[in-house]
Amino acid sequence: MLNIFPFIGWLRTYKWSFLPKDFMAGLTVAIVLIPQGLAYALIAGLPAVYGLYASMVPLLIYTFFGTSRSLGVGPVAMDSLLVAAGLGAIASVGPENYIAMAVLLAFMVGFIQLFLGLLRMGFLVNFLSKPVISGFTSGAALIIMLSQLKYLLGTDIEGSSQLHNIIWNTILKAGEFNPYDLGIGLSGILLMIALRKWNKKLPYILLVVIIGIVSVYFFQWVDKGVDIVGEIPKGLPVAAIPDLSWKSMMPLWPIAFTLSLVGYLETISIGKGIEDKMNNDQLDANRELVALGLSNMTGSIFQSYPVTASFSRSAIYHEAKSKTNLATLITALIVLLTLLFLTPLFYYLPKAALAAIIMVSVYNLIDVKYALVLWKYRKDEFLVLLSTFAITLFVGIMEGILVGVLISLLLMVYRTSNPHLAVLANIKGTPYYRNIKRFGSDALVRKDLLIIRFDAQLYFGNSSFFKSRLLELIDGKGPELKAVILNAEAINYIDSSAAHMLRNLLEMLYQKGIQFYIAGAIGPTRDILFSSGIMELLPKECLFVETREAVLFFDDPAKKSQLQNKVALQRNTLGN
Amino acid sequence: MLNIFPFIGWLRTYKWSFLPKDFMAGLTVAIVLIPQGLAYALIAGLPAVYGLYASMVPLLIYTFFGTSRSLGVGPVAMDSLLVAAGLGAIASVGPENYIAMAVLLAFMVGFIQLFLGLLRMGFLVNFLSKPVISGFTSGAALIIMLSQLKYLLGTDIEGSSQLHNIIWNTILKAGEFNPYDLGIGLSGILLMIALRKWNKKLPYILLVVIIGIVSVYFFQWVDKGVDIVGEIPKGLPVAAIPDLSWKSMMPLWPIAFTLSLVGYLETISIGKGIEDKMNNDQLDANRELVALGLSNMTGSIFQSYPVTASFSRSAIYHEAKSKTNLATLITALIVLLTLLFLTPLFYYLPKAALAAIIMVSVYNLIDVKYALVLWKYRKDEFLVLLSTFAITLFVGIMEGILVGVLISLLLMVYRTSNPHLAVLANIKGTPYYRNIKRFGSDALVRKDLLIIRFDAQLYFGNSSFFKSRLLELIDGKGPELKAVILNAEAINYIDSSAAHMLRNLLEMLYQKGIQFYIAGAIGPTRDILFSSGIMELLPKECLFVETREAVLFFDDPAKKSQLQNKVALQRNTLGN
Repeated sequence: MLNIFPFIGWLRTYKWSFLPKDFMAGLTVAIVLIPQGLAYALIAGLPAVYGLYASMVPLLIYTFFGTSRSLGVGPVAMDSLLVAAGLGAIASVGPENYIAMAVLLAFMVGFIQLFLGLLRMGFLVNFLSKPVISGFTSGAALIIMLSQLKYLLGTDIEGSSQLHNIIWNTILKAGEFNPYDLGIGLSGILLMIALRKWNKKLPYILLVVIIGIVSVYFFQWVDKGVDIVGEIPKGLPVAAIPDLSWKSMMPLWPIAFTLSLVGYLETISIGKGIEDKMNNDQLDANRELVALGLSNMTGSIFQSYPVTASFSRSAIYHEAKSKTNLATLITALIVLLTLLFLTPLFYYLPKAALAAIIMVSVYNLIDVKYALVLWKYRKDEFLVLLSTFAITLFVGIMEGILVGVLISLLLMVYRTSNPHLAVLANIKGTPYYRNIKRFGSDALVRKDLLIIRFDAQLYFGNSSFFKSRLLELIDGKGPELKAVILNAEAINYIDSSAAHMLRNLLEMLYQKGIQFYIAGAIGPTRDILFSSGIMELLPKECLFVETREAVLFFDDPAKKSQLQNKVALQRNTLGN
Repeated sequence: MLNIFPFIGWLRTYKWSFLPKDFMAGLTVAIVLIPQGLAYALIAGLPAVYGLYASMVPLLIYTFFGTSRSLGVGPVAMDSLLVAAGLGAIASVGPENYIAMAVLLAFMVGFIQLFLGLLRMGFLVNFLSKPVISGFTSGAALIIMLSQLKYLLGTDIEGSSQLHNIIWNTILKAGEFNPYDLGIGLSGILLMIALRKWNKKLPYILLVVIIGIVSVYFFQWVDKGVDIVGEIPKGLPVAAIPDLSWKSMMPLWPIAFTLSLVGYLETISIGKGIEDKMNNDQLDANRELVALGLSNMTGSIFQSYPVTASFSRSAIYHEAKSKTNLATLITALIVLLTLLFLTPLFYYLPKAALAAIIMVSVYNLIDVKYALVLWKYRKDEFLVLLSTFAITLFVGIMEGILVGVLISLLLMVYRTSNPHLAVLANIKGTPYYRNIKRFGSDALVRKDLLIIRFDAQLYFGNSSFFKSRLLELIDGKGPELKAVILNAEAINYIDSSAAHMLRNLLEMLYQKGIQFYIAGAIGPTRDILFSSGIMELLPKECLFVETREAVLFFDDPAKKSQLQNKVALQRNTLGN
C-alpha cells in the first residue's frame, strides 16, 4: 500500500508540531505560484486563469502520490512554451479549439508518464545528456524572454518560436511601443533585481504584483493603453473529460511525448538536486513518473494544462523546510480560495509586470559558464550543446531536443568506432606495461613483442578498424616479431562480427608464425572468447590475467603457474 | 598516378606467360555471366538484353580502376531485386520510363560511391553488422527464389517484394501452371544440383542453357506455351547521358543510397574474403569505392543498370587463378562479341531455365547455420538477424537493412547503458582482485573495503545507473565501510555528464567519511580526471596503477612509492 500511496507514510507519522512549518512553506509558495501561474498561462497562449487551474488539482493529486516533500509541481515556463510552440505548429489547432487542445495535451502527457512509470521506463530520461539539457534550457529560456517583448513593449507583435522571426517581428513593431507598458516592465525588472540583491527572503514577485496593480488603478493607466489582465472568471474549473477522439489526439502525440519526457526530466533533476543537498530522501524515479502522470491526467479533467516541478518553487519548499507533502496541499487550498474569492484583485494587474516576472525568472536558466567549460575541455560535447542551442533557437523547441539526443548518440557511436589503441611497453624500473607514447624513453620497447591495448568494446562498428590498425602495427614491427599480446582489460564486450574478425586474424597470424596472447580479459569477455569459438583456435595457455605474465610466459613458457591458469581461464558455464 | 590508375601497376609488369591463365579465367566467367546476366535482368524487371549491357562497359572500366584481380563485377541477383523493389514502390515510375529510371539509378549509385570514396567514407560500411548482413541476405535470397515461381510455373503471377503477397498471388494462379515450363524448370534445378555434386568444375549453367535451348527448338515447345527469352536486340548499347533532371532523381535517392552501400558492401566482403585466403593482396576500401563508382557511372551512359561484385563469378576468377585484371577485360570483350553476333542463339532459351539458374545460384546465400549459432550464444544478435530477416521478407528490402542497422545501434547503446558492474575481492592465494560472483569462496571479501569494476565507458546513458548501483552496494556494506576502490581499467571514456556525477558522488562519500580510490585508469581517462575537475576533489595520492596497490595504501598509506605515483599520475598536458 505504501508503494502506491506514499502519503500513508507521512500521514501515519504526522505530528502537530510539523504544521506551522508546512503551513508557512505552503503559503510562501502560493504567493509566488499565483502570479507565476497567471504569467505562464500567457506564455502557453492561454487565458491567465488557466494558470490558476493548473496550480490547483495537479497539486492536490501530487500531495498523495509524490515521493518528495520538496517538489513544487504546477505550471512552469519551459513547458508552457512547449505547449505554445507545439500547438502553434499544428494546422488543425485553431483559436476556437486551442484551449481544449492544451487541456487534452495534459491528459496525454499524464497518460504517457503513467504508462512509462508503470513499465519502469524512467531510465529513458538518461538519454538526455547534460549538454543537450543545457543547450535546450538556455535556448528555450532565451525564446521565452524574447516572447515577452510584446507585453513589455505593449504592442501587438506576431508570435513565433524561432529567434530570427521573433526579432524580425519585434523590429517591425518596435516603433509602436507604449511608453507606459515599457516603463512598468523595466521598473518591474529593476525592482526585482534590486530587491533580490538586498534580501533574498523578500516576496519580491508579490511586491511587484501589488505595486503594479496599485499603480495602474490609482494613475488610471488603463486610459493610456496599458494592457491589463482584466476579468479573471471567478469560481472553480468545471470537471469534464477531454475530447479523447483519435482525430484530436493524433497530431498531438509528438508534443505530448516531448512534454512528458521534458517534464519528467525537470522533476527528476530538481528532485535529485535537492536530494543531493539533503542526503536522506530516496526519490523513486518510476514512482515520481506515476505521480506526475496522475497529476497531469486528473488535472486535465479539471482544465489544467501540462504541469511539472518548478525550480524556483521547489527551492522555496526546501528553504522553508517543509516537513511533509501537506505543504503542497496547503498551497493548492490557497489557490482554491483565490479562485473562489480573490480573482477580482488581479483585474488591474498589468501584463508588462507579468512579463517582467517571467524575464527575471527564466534569465537564470541561461547557463553560459557550463558552455565555456565544455568549450575548453570537451570540444565534442560543446558541439552537442551548441547544436541543440542553435536548433532550439532557430528551428524549434522539439527539434532542438531531438537533434541533440541524436547527435549525442552518434557521437557515442563514433567514439566507439574510432577508439583509442595504445602500444604498451614495460616502463623502466617498474612492473607496469603502459602506453609508449605517454612514457617516452622510459618505455622499454622490444622488437620481438607487440603489446597493444584496445580501449573500447569490440563490435561491428570498430572490428575492421581494429584489424587494420593491428596489421599495420605488425607490418611496422617487421620480421623479428614473434608474438602479439592483447591487453583486453578495456574490452568490455565482443560481438559476433568482432569474434568472426578475431578468428580470421588468429588464422592469419598463425600462418605468419606469430603467437597471440590475451591478457586481463574480464569475466564476460572470457565467456565470449569461449562461446564464440575463439578458444578453439587459441590454445588455453595463451590467456593471462596480467600483461607481465604473458611476457614472462613468452620468455619462458615453463613459468606459468596452475594458479594463474585457474584465474585466467575461469568461465561461467551457467550463462551470465 | 598508380593511386588513380592501378592498372598501370599490373600493365607495367605484365608477362606474356600470364596470358593463358587470364584468358581461361575470363572465358569461364563469361560463360557463367551471360546466362546470369539475362536472368538477373528479369529479376530487375528489365528486358534480358540489359543484363548483357550491364556485363560489358562496367567491366571495362573496372579493369582499369579496380584494385583486386579477382572481383567479378557485373549484374548480381540481390541488387537486381533491390532495383525492382525500389522502382516498383515509386508511383512516378511507370512502365514507359522504367528502363530509363533503372539506368539513371546506376548513374546515381555510381555518383554516391565515387563521392563516398573520394571523401574516404568507406568505413560507413562497418555499420552493417554481420547479423544484419546475414538476415538481409537470407531474406533477399528467399524473395528472389520465390519471385522466380512465375517463370517456373509459367503463369502470369503479379509481382511483389513481400513474402505474404508473393505466396498469396502464387496460390491464386498456381492452378493455371504450364506443365512444360514447370518440367523444364524442375529438371534444370535437379540437373544443376546433380552436375555440381558430380564435378564442381563442369560449366553446369552453360549446359542447362544449351539443353534448354535445344529442347525447346527441337520439340517445338513454344507451341505448348513455353515462355522463351525471344528476340534479343543485336548490337551494342547506344551511348546517352541519362535524364539527370532533379524531378527524375528526387524519388530515387533513397534506393540509390541503399544500393550504393549494399553494392559496396558486397564488393568489400567478397574482396576481403578472397584476400583472407590469399594473404597478399591489399584491397583498398576507398579506392574500390571509386572504381565501383566509375564503373556504375560510365556503365549507366551505356545502358547498364547498377552493378557490383558477384560471389559466384569472383570465386571463378579466384579458382581459375587469374593473374591480373586483364581477365576482366577478356570477359567484357566476350560479352561484346556475344552482343554483336550471338544474341540470336538465345532466342529459344526458356525463361524457366533461367529461373532454375537463379534459384540454384541464390539458394546458397541462405545461411541457417549462422542463425543457429547466434541463437545458441547471442540471443541479442539473433534478434537483430531475425528482425532484419523478417522485415526484409514482410515489409521490404530497404526497410530490412535500415531497421537492422537501427536495432544494432540501439542494442549497442542499450548494452552500454546497462553495463556489467563487478564487485571484486582478492582471490585466495593469488595477487589478483577478481569478481566475487565468479570465484565464490575463493574470494576474500573485506567488510571495510568495497572494490568495484565498471565495464563500460561512463557516459550520460549510464552515469545514473553507475551512481545508484554504487550507492546500493555502499548501503549493503553498512557502517563498517571505510573506502571504495574503483577499478577503472574498463572505463575507456568519461563524458561531461558522468564527470559531473562523479564529482557529486565524491562529495557524498566524503560527507559519509568514506575514502575513494581509483585504480588502473588508462591514459585518456586520467587526462579526463584531471581536466574535468575530479582531481580537485580527489587527492592525488588516491590514484593507483593497480587495485592491489590501492588496497596496500588503504592498509598503510606510507607504502606508496614515488614510482607508483609517477605512473599513476602521468597525464598529457598537451592534449591527446
